[in-house]
Amino acid sequence: MKAVDLIAFDADDTLWHNETIFIAAQSKFVQLVANYHREEWIGRRLYETEARNLRHFGYGVKGFTLSMIETAIELSEGRITAAEIQQVIEFGKEMLKSPIELLDGVEESIRELKETYPLMVITKGDLFDQEAKLARSGLGEHFSKIEIVAEKDRSTYERIIKDCGVDPRRFLMVGNSLKSDISPVAAIGAHAVHIPYEKTWAHETVAGIDLPDGSYIELEHIRLLPALLAQMRSVGSKGSEGS
Amino acid sequence: MKAVDLIAFDADDTLWHNETIFIAAQSKFVQLVANYHREEWIGRRLYETEARNLRHFGYGVKGFTLSMIETAIELSEGRITAAEIQQVIEFGKEMLKSPIELLDGVEESIRELKETYPLMVITKGDLFDQEAKLARSGLGEHFSKIEIVAEKDRSTYERIIKDCGVDPRRFLMVGNSLKSDISPVAAIGAHAVHIPYEKTWAHETVAGIDLPDGSYIELEHIRLLPALLAQMRSVGSKGSEGS
Repeated sequence: MKAVDLIAFDADDTLWHNETIFIAAQSKFVQLVANYHREEWIGRRLYETEARNLRHFGYGVKGFTLSMIETAIELSEGRITAAEIQQVIEFGKEMLKSPIELLDGVEESIRELKETYPLMVITKGDLFDQEAKLARSGLGEHFSKIEIVAEKDRSTYERIIKDCGVDPRRFLMVGNSLKSDISPVAAIGAHAVHIPYEKTWAHETVAGIDLPDGSYIELEHIRLLPALLAQMRSVGSKGSEGS
Repeated sequence: MKAVDLIAFDADDTLWHNETIFIAAQSKFVQLVANYHREEWIGRRLYETEARNLRHFGYGVKGFTLSMIETAIELSEGRITAAEIQQVIEFGKEMLKSPIELLDGVEESIRELKETYPLMVITKGDLFDQEAKLARSGLGEHFSKIEIVAEKDRSTYERIIKDCGVDPRRFLMVGNSLKSDISPVAAIGAHAVHIPYEKTWAHETVAGIDLPDGSYIELEHIRLLPALLAQMRSVGSKGSEGS
């Protein structure tokens, strides 16, 4: 028997590169503002502005762009020019239309898994931007459902799993963020598979996430996921319940 | 018998005032930029910038704020100051936290309808902002489902209605926009009730929406909705199918 009835994937930095796009934009931003302030402070102040604005703007490129503008004004003590601010807006637009680069192995693994399991995406960020990225990724047709949410916490996962009519113990979430993809999922008794990304946004690396041993599985690469699921099946089939 | 199995409501300018918040922000923006350009042009240029940026930003306050900044830079030919741009960002933040004013009659009508029908919300805009508004509105508990979407077109409605397991002929959408709430709903054979709002955003009043007679119902006020539904019930019960 199969051990799970539904597999959900995070999108940014799980299916495709995203943090790299933010890092590239931030690096252009640092160059732009470097005339006004010492470089080593710029990234730190940008992060502080982002964190402070999160409650107004939520996640995503548009909020990030507004935070870059605000940081530029603060760090330059108002000396930043309108033309330079227009450049920051252009950084944002470039981010929004940058090509989607799938992570290595994603396409093959998704194609293999969808033969056996219904697959869905659960991602946070700008609704408009995430839908556009999914369309550009070419992966859309493989997923039976897409959920774009404002915050990935326990109640969000509970609601989605209930909507899908799945037993939490037979739901599996795959993602790169311990905070958003693993911890809240493990907390409701569902399966969670952590596949770390090479770079992680500071906000997603908050200390104090303490997950008990065995509450989730860590994989080095998405290519290992089909084999893991096959293994979970064979463990399941030793059980008593059949079907 | 009931004629509908599910009633969906648009949110902005159907359940609560929204366009008034944009109009107030725009009026502050016009004052701010009036030093740099003739007032009568500012609103027009802002609308043009918004329309041009829609494919990058989608709907919502953050995109509107970025468009205000871009318009200020253009209209001032780069002379707008950083302090003035910071003020525009503050206009955006004020919009995002402005109190929700329900339209007259909304609360009572929703309370009455939910005794008989499952109710949901289908709205477009910033995910984060719309969720926050719904929470601030105090109406959240009355709705069994909230769908925040990037675009309200025919395929969006088809997907939602299918997800809900409802026959389109037994689905009813209520909203203030002929373009977003009525036309695509009527096109798939579902019921649509148009309740015009006092003010409508230029983008939602696109010419060329040609709806055949009888394809939707127009009500002057949401208070008339329960009576309309009762009437639809009695018409339905004259039919043959029973149940």
